[in-house]
Amino acid sequence: MKVVIIGGVAAGPKAASRIMRMAPDAQVTIIEKGSFLSYAGCGLPYYVSGEIKEQRELMGTSAGVIRDEVFFRNVKNFEVRSGTEALEIDRVARSVRVRDLATRQESTLDYDKLVLATGATPMIPPIPGVDKGNVFTLHGIHDAEGIKRLVTERTARDVVVIGGGLIGVEATEALVAHGCRVTIVEMLPQILGMLDWDMARLVENYMESQGVRILSGTRALALEDRGGGGKITHVKTDKGELPADMVIIAIGVRPNVALAKGAGLEIGEKTGAIRVNDRLQTSDPDIYAAGDCVECIDRITGNPCFVPLGSTANKQGRVAACNICGGNEIFPGIVASSICKVFDYCAGRTGLTERAARAAGYEVISAMVPGADRAHYMSESKPLLVKMVADRKTGRLLGVQVTGPGEGAKRIDVAATAITAGMTIDDIAGLDLSYAPPYASAMDNLVTAANVVRNKRDGLMVGITAEEVHRKIEANEDFFLLDARSPEEYAEVRLPKSTLIPLGALRRRLAEVPRDREIVCYCAISLRGYEASRVLVGAGFVDVKVLDGGLAMWPFEKEIG
Amino acid sequence: MKVVIIGGVAAGPKAASRIMRMAPDAQVTIIEKGSFLSYAGCGLPYYVSGEIKEQRELMGTSAGVIRDEVFFRNVKNFEVRSGTEALEIDRVARSVRVRDLATRQESTLDYDKLVLATGATPMIPPIPGVDKGNVFTLHGIHDAEGIKRLVTERTARDVVVIGGGLIGVEATEALVAHGCRVTIVEMLPQILGMLDWDMARLVENYMESQGVRILSGTRALALEDRGGGGKITHVKTDKGELPADMVIIAIGVRPNVALAKGAGLEIGEKTGAIRVNDRLQTSDPDIYAAGDCVECIDRITGNPCFVPLGSTANKQGRVAACNICGGNEIFPGIVASSICKVFDYCAGRTGLTERAARAAGYEVISAMVPGADRAHYMSESKPLLVKMVADRKTGRLLGVQVTGPGEGAKRIDVAATAITAGMTIDDIAGLDLSYAPPYASAMDNLVTAANVVRNKRDGLMVGITAEEVHRKIEANEDFFLLDARSPEEYAEVRLPKSTLIPLGALRRRLAEVPRDREIVCYCAISLRGYEASRVLVGAGFVDVKVLDGGLAMWPFEKEIG
Repeated sequence: MKVVIIGGVAAGPKAASRIMRMAPDAQVTIIEKGSFLSYAGCGLPYYVSGEIKEQRELMGTSAGVIRDEVFFRNVKNFEVRSGTEALEIDRVARSVRVRDLATRQESTLDYDKLVLATGATPMIPPIPGVDKGNVFTLHGIHDAEGIKRLVTERTARDVVVIGGGLIGVEATEALVAHGCRVTIVEMLPQILGMLDWDMARLVENYMESQGVRILSGTRALALEDRGGGGKITHVKTDKGELPADMVIIAIGVRPNVALAKGAGLEIGEKTGAIRVNDRLQTSDPDIYAAGDCVECIDRITGNPCFVPLGSTANKQGRVAACNICGGNEIFPGIVASSICKVFDYCAGRTGLTERAARAAGYEVISAMVPGADRAHYMSESKPLLVKMVADRKTGRLLGVQVTGPGEGAKRIDVAATAITAGMTIDDIAGLDLSYAPPYASAMDNLVTAANVVRNKRDGLMVGITAEEVHRKIEANEDFFLLDARSPEEYAEVRLPKSTLIPLGALRRRLAEVPRDREIVCYCAISLRGYEASRVLVGAGFVDVKVLDGGLAMWPFEKEIG
Repeated sequence: MKVVIIGGVAAGPKAASRIMRMAPDAQVTIIEKGSFLSYAGCGLPYYVSGEIKEQRELMGTSAGVIRDEVFFRNVKNFEVRSGTEALEIDRVARSVRVRDLATRQESTLDYDKLVLATGATPMIPPIPGVDKGNVFTLHGIHDAEGIKRLVTERTARDVVVIGGGLIGVEATEALVAHGCRVTIVEMLPQILGMLDWDMARLVENYMESQGVRILSGTRALALEDRGGGGKITHVKTDKGELPADMVIIAIGVRPNVALAKGAGLEIGEKTGAIRVNDRLQTSDPDIYAAGDCVECIDRITGNPCFVPLGSTANKQGRVAACNICGGNEIFPGIVASSICKVFDYCAGRTGLTERAARAAGYEVISAMVPGADRAHYMSESKPLLVKMVADRKTGRLLGVQVTGPGEGAKRIDVAATAITAGMTIDDIAGLDLSYAPPYASAMDNLVTAANVVRNKRDGLMVGITAEEVHRKIEANEDFFLLDARSPEEYAEVRLPKSTLIPLGALRRRLAEVPRDREIVCYCAISLRGYEASRVLVGAGFVDVKVLDGGLAMWPFEKEIG
């Protein structure tokens, strides 16, 4: 069996290795346009930051061996042709025409099975100046080397990052580690589009506290070389201009589908990525596709989506290989789990955001639930801010988002598993998650979040968003904002126009609460706020709400001191 | 509605608080024998170690308020009678006779609903000397204070911990933090009975590297006061005697069921704990039970079990409260998730151990899978050792165990969720877990473990346990032990009687491998060992196995240098 694999970074080598383990007699050839093989693309920001010291670490196995042509030939027993471009697929002849980029020589490779692992390419906005020497994407090792050179030479102090997605944020952290002053220019009203606005805003506030400037709702119009030295010195936006010693473009990636298109393979209309069935066959059953060039099925909505990630690429490489070797393995789709480290915060999500859930037609209940990420009396305990989204009708968990310094990846992975299984918020509340004070609270953050959603569903709690409360405050609306914390906490920090009645005093001070107005209760994390609301409802008050997420997740200004 | 709750530590206060939120008019009274309320019992080892500085932190809310009678009255609106013992339940009159332990006065409390949250009591072995002043359990705050006094006074240097379960191990860590020389005396052949022997052995090796002496398979026969000062000075065991300035007894707990028994309520035969239905009603529907005194249903086997944990107690308190207030909430049972911190290791499990799975009649496939807990090129990456147990027939995930310095709690929680959902190893392999280099590898440890189990199921890999290979080595059996690593790695450390053939050289050195003998391949983590086995099988070798878990999970002596 002859297998040709086009693409030598993630899904390609994974598929090749697996094929050789299942069918040691197979003849497998990988065609790779670039010169670097099987490198850890996701590690590039950490190579730029200096956390990873040597380029070779990105290309090594966990045993420290470099994955080059020799390694693949001797250890894995397949051939890799780097610096070789695949030009055309002849589906009738079952061959691929390729060109050696050094010698310009063309040749033809026959295949019984073909794997397209062509990856994705960073998008470049159609604005002037993007071709200058100090403008980078952060996609390949060459990019990382270029950025690293400028920051270690200290020639890049003011950096503009265009695009506030995962890569933009990771690049920002890496640049700040080198002392750069970074401004993120984001066209949309928020960075990290994988999150809802309310969660993203918390990340933005935190990044700003770390010295990053974030200009959301801002469009880059031109990159300008005012010094005439062939380098960008300024970024012109629709809201003014920014000095720039370097520009990073991180507005997303586009799947590489030219070869597939040229061969007449089906491309997803919405995603623009190669369409595959759940065995990862393209519309030609002898041609498989895997990794950043394919579209996936969202397991919640059933819709095609494009979420290129190394984890998916590796899993798909394995699935394609199994099927090529006569197996019948399924790639079941994704739940769009994403996470990134933002200085000492995590920012993660799995499943649908509230926005996406509403767009998909769900009637949504959501909860914003701050809490300690382990027993609050442990010194290493840190706050974790959780947003949970569920379907009101069925109770099904639709999505979870996290941020904060606490351990968020764990909760995202549990939620991803629960969403995959179709669990409801009642199921989540009953999960037997591991408990010991160094790792979790007796009621894990997800269990608590599920309970808050259930309280809302069951009518025990009526939530109101920070955005809505903020609007009321700004509009000077007539409502009663009740702070249920202690006088000491209140003196330190509080919401504007709030009135302090500590929870422990509320039952005897009911006369101070107006019966004819909307009441919004809050505290630090909205537990005492919730209890205050129950006391008021028990005392006959009718319009009583609780501020979602409490002070801990309030993204606007507070009154201090 | 009058509710009486017996027990004021975990499930009791949780139930009371929830009842007051759901039914603000209810009259709730908690009866508590001790003087401490709602304290974090699980935090006691960390109070002993000094990680938690003040006793009050164990009794505070996350906002720092002490949960005492005044707090419960003012903030939560229920009454707590501490220092009060419940003597008898009159189910016909619906009343509880109680005694104030200070005044010895008895009185009677009527109830509409009663909650038994009577907890559990440490078991004490029937041996001489257990009543001496320097013999402790680690169950309540008094115990912790007593232990803390002796270690901070530096009068306790040599400490014997009888029992190597969770509490014994946590106590050991706390004592070592104070400079104590600790010996664990464990009757069973291993400590941490929640783990399989092979996993526990790895923890034991690590603890011994931290200076702890572990005497498993050893029975304490007597605690002896040889100085005549009323204090234990020696522990006599069936394998010799140990000096002891202090003894900690941690052989497990027994549910407190005297009241329930006295009232004729049903008790589980196997567990000795109070039997409840899934709404947490005892055999008397007006009497609920929750927390460490009840038996749970194992969600995998459907069998009753007794796994007292603060997490379960809190969830059950909430469920009982909901049902008391007219709801219909289910406590769905447990999957026996447990975790503990052991110095810089974690030790955790969820679901069934291999031992328990076999005992329950499953045909088991298991895998031992070491790996980095995040991208191996990140500096904070640490090894995590995973054991996965599945049902060969259905592929269902039955259990996962972890140890090592890596992030294990995350994987346990994901596995607990997957087991609860009835997922198979194929489902696990397809999970869309969150991936970014600071948090995970592209193939998460659980995904890789599931793939190893699948490879075994599909006949691509034949495993052999470390125990069996060790036996062969000791017995001088005629087999070929092939080390597939590099010469440098081999020179550093290797298995006795192994032969080095690096994977990259294997295909051209096949002649050095005997065709007539059993071959066992290994490497650091058994990935190259697995690939070597595939090369050999591809070359026609017939009896080729792979060492489960590789060198990383080899619990016996190695050849060094």
